[in-house]
Amino acid sequence: MKAFNDLADFSRDEIRALVTLAGRLDAHPEPEALKGKVLSLLFLSPSLRTLASFQAAMTRLGGGSFVISPDMSIHGLETRPGIVMDGAAAEHIREAVPVIASYGDAIGIRAFAERKNIECDMAETEFTALTSLIESPYINMESAMNHPCQSLADWKTMDDLGIPANGGKFVLSWAYHPRPLPLAVPAATLHMAAYRGMDVTVLRPEGFELPDQLMKKAAAAADAAGGSVTETDDRHAAMQDAHVIYAKSWSSTRHYGDRLADQKLREVHLDWCVDEPWFANARDDCRFMHCLPVRRGVVVADNILDGPRSVVIPEARNRMLAQMAVLHQMLGGSR
Amino acid sequence: MKAFNDLADFSRDEIRALVTLAGRLDAHPEPEALKGKVLSLLFLSPSLRTLASFQAAMTRLGGGSFVISPDMSIHGLETRPGIVMDGAAAEHIREAVPVIASYGDAIGIRAFAERKNIECDMAETEFTALTSLIESPYINMESAMNHPCQSLADWKTMDDLGIPANGGKFVLSWAYHPRPLPLAVPAATLHMAAYRGMDVTVLRPEGFELPDQLMKKAAAAADAAGGSVTETDDRHAAMQDAHVIYAKSWSSTRHYGDRLADQKLREVHLDWCVDEPWFANARDDCRFMHCLPVRRGVVVADNILDGPRSVVIPEARNRMLAQMAVLHQMLGGSR
Amino acid sequence: MKAFNDLADFSRDEIRALVTLAGRLDAHPEPEALKGKVLSLLFLSPSLRTLASFQAAMTRLGGGSFVISPDMSIHGLETRPGIVMDGAAAEHIREAVPVIASYGDAIGIRAFAERKNIECDMAETEFTALTSLIESPYINMESAMNHPCQSLADWKTMDDLGIPANGGKFVLSWAYHPRPLPLAVPAATLHMAAYRGMDVTVLRPEGFELPDQLMKKAAAAADAAGGSVTETDDRHAAMQDAHVIYAKSWSSTRHYGDRLADQKLREVHLDWCVDEPWFANARDDCRFMHCLPVRRGVVVADNILDGPRSVVIPEARNRMLAQMAVLHQMLGGSR
Repeated sequence: MKAFNDLADFSRDEIRALVTLAGRLDAHPEPEALKGKVLSLLFLSPSLRTLASFQAAMTRLGGGSFVISPDMSIHGLETRPGIVMDGAAAEHIREAVPVIASYGDAIGIRAFAERKNIECDMAETEFTALTSLIESPYINMESAMNHPCQSLADWKTMDDLGIPANGGKFVLSWAYHPRPLPLAVPAATLHMAAYRGMDVTVLRPEGFELPDQLMKKAAAAADAAGGSVTETDDRHAAMQDAHVIYAKSWSSTRHYGDRLADQKLREVHLDWCVDEPWFANARDDCRFMHCLPVRRGVVVADNILDGPRSVVIPEARNRMLAQMAVLHQMLGGSR
Repeated sequence: MKAFNDLADFSRDEIRALVTLAGRLDAHPEPEALKGKVLSLLFLSPSLRTLASFQAAMTRLGGGSFVISPDMSIHGLETRPGIVMDGAAAEHIREAVPVIASYGDAIGIRAFAERKNIECDMAETEFTALTSLIESPYINMESAMNHPCQSLADWKTMDDLGIPANGGKFVLSWAYHPRPLPLAVPAATLHMAAYRGMDVTVLRPEGFELPDQLMKKAAAAADAAGGSVTETDDRHAAMQDAHVIYAKSWSSTRHYGDRLADQKLREVHLDWCVDEPWFANARDDCRFMHCLPVRRGVVVADNILDGPRSVVIPEARNRMLAQMAVLHQMLGGSR
Repeated sequence: MKAFNDLADFSRDEIRALVTLAGRLDAHPEPEALKGKVLSLLFLSPSLRTLASFQAAMTRLGGGSFVISPDMSIHGLETRPGIVMDGAAAEHIREAVPVIASYGDAIGIRAFAERKNIECDMAETEFTALTSLIESPYINMESAMNHPCQSLADWKTMDDLGIPANGGKFVLSWAYHPRPLPLAVPAATLHMAAYRGMDVTVLRPEGFELPDQLMKKAAAAADAAGGSVTETDDRHAAMQDAHVIYAKSWSSTRHYGDRLADQKLREVHLDWCVDEPWFANARDDCRFMHCLPVRRGVVVADNILDGPRSVVIPEARNRMLAQMAVLHQMLGGSR
């Protein structure tokens, strides 16, 4: 595996094989699989779960990792091409990224969206600028519009719970949050659920539609897999017979990068906090999923998060297992 | 071993077995004992020795670790129960702690005392709130009133030096320090020396008595082990025939959490800086112990710290060895 | 090997053996060579490449490492001898360094020059103060006037490229930089190239001469190895038939530690930015080397750094391999 960048780059059989491998590595540890192998971890954006789960994953497979973030370089990393570096930054990503990559057998990179221009972010301009600098295998640890490690973990989480692929009803719901958040998780989640063959409903208020391009990509994935994709702002209709509600806040795509206009649009939706009444017409065992971190009492009520519907802790643990499977295949541990 | 939280949870034989195991792992390394095992390290309070010694301990046993501190999460971790998280913090410990724990085979947690209310701190309210969130084995890396890793290392240090258990005379002495420090180390040390069967004297100025509850716990431990516990502000009487002086500053328990009142009480005791004259009537080979970090010229004179009485460096190294023994038993390395 | 502090401490045969070992460990990994071994990494000055490459090196050899920097101790580390520590710092290097060292089988230490007094820095006053505190093997990860890990990597880089030792022409060139930088890399590089037996020219503007002591040490090394050392401010003469130009900025030695006087001297030399015209009379395949980080458009033009002359990425990767060889010999992996 040369890159783990987008679930869409893999066939459904390949994804199922990764999920199976993740489960096998949990049940039957392989502490020698990646003996002496190194994963470089480059965080251009902050992290807790991703950082911890990748470090733990490499250790469990007998290898190791190291972590680099911009504050470790003197005065940060310059990213602008062609610039005369007579200011504060003493190092350019054009050197830093290939060097960091050269110390590892693979590199994981996290770089959030710039959120100035939606076309640039949809085109993954920044992330591609980074990966174009390296020749070694790489893992997308969250880019502007993707988060394949989260999606692989989410796929496994639903498998673990016996939630059906074809025929499973998946609601991806916008939720209130005081700040405009990136589209990476909703983009990846929408595609993942569709590609798993589920009937996916995007539930969101007006102004928070997901970009057409993402909806079309998901619809194509659903077509191929026997699922469907729809969107609505009607909570009751969306939740009918749902197996899963996956909550996530995201910024307005109508006012992308415009914090004030976004704020105006979102501040009337304080009631988009997932709570028990939302589940009135869902399946009795409808589950609550979230990628974490989650704001209690804002995105979701405490009683949901602390109650039997919530699967956020095993979902987060599956991050580690899913990444172990990816690393196992990428770094040659698989025989 | 499900938890390493308090030496009092273990029989004296169990503690002796851990000390023996620590020595054996030093003499006969077992670099495959914890192959592929992961220790999660959660530091809600700062650390240097504990951080380094636990990381080194896991590596020596063939496993690994990862470190999480609140500044790694976006805007820190929320700890208040039931709060609506519409402020800065994006993550609550109710999710963060179980997730971090789930990536490891065990978790080490450090959370200093809040030092507002002595009853809360004596009851380990905060630390228990954290450990109640997890089901995996855990290690207390210093809580409000305990520091069992330090105590196990100190026990071993005295064994290494041939300082007698029964009949050994141990002085736990308050020392001056510009700031009111937590009670964790004095609390743990007092109990450890008593439980080792030593004759323990707490030497402290008025106003710096240790809480009754701690004195009673230590007295019970001494009773069981053939030792004794007394307290005094008479330096000469305390040091008579002492084998060890263990210096440590701590805050006034009379004015707990009241920085100004504490300051008034302590500022007249600048002379509580351990120096050679203190040892006038002690044993010739009386040792100086301290958990580090230590303020030179404030808590102890340079000539003591740099002279033959001081055992602070091997004492600190024993942190690593003691923790290796705990990890070895906890994570199944012991056969 | 008790210390890796200066290439001059090793015979040329010993250095060649390290370079050979570095290549062998790249071609034939030994992931069990340092099983269970720990390297302590103490960074009193910031780092990116050194940090990452040492962590990766230990993992590749089956061991591990931990990292300590002053900001991890409460309010930093005190370094002044004999001080009464009643200020902010809670810990002195006299305790911190031996303790950190005691957790590892060896320790790597980085401490940049103070750059107040050139005699102190030439005498490695600060670095020696640190290494005098420990008994375990240590590695110089850059001191005031040395950077032996960089030099060993640079030696290997030239071997890899087939650049001749005797008869090879090496230009160490000053370059413009907005700030006065330490002399560690030029000092180490000058000696390394001379000791490799090359004909070395130090190319620098007036006022940026390297200290006599460094020039003499290099001349002696060149004498022993069949090379030569000269200096000039004539770019054309220096570059004649050059195999390598190694660019690096450094502070004025005429106004050492005087930032304003240095600034005045350097600000007229903005044209000391390595570009294609510099290579007019060099060998066609003349290479560009730099230790990184490098300021684009300031120290070197983009087209050189991105073109075929530049070997800065493999040069940086050789840091890891060279350090693996040192660690392999130091920590007993070599049979």
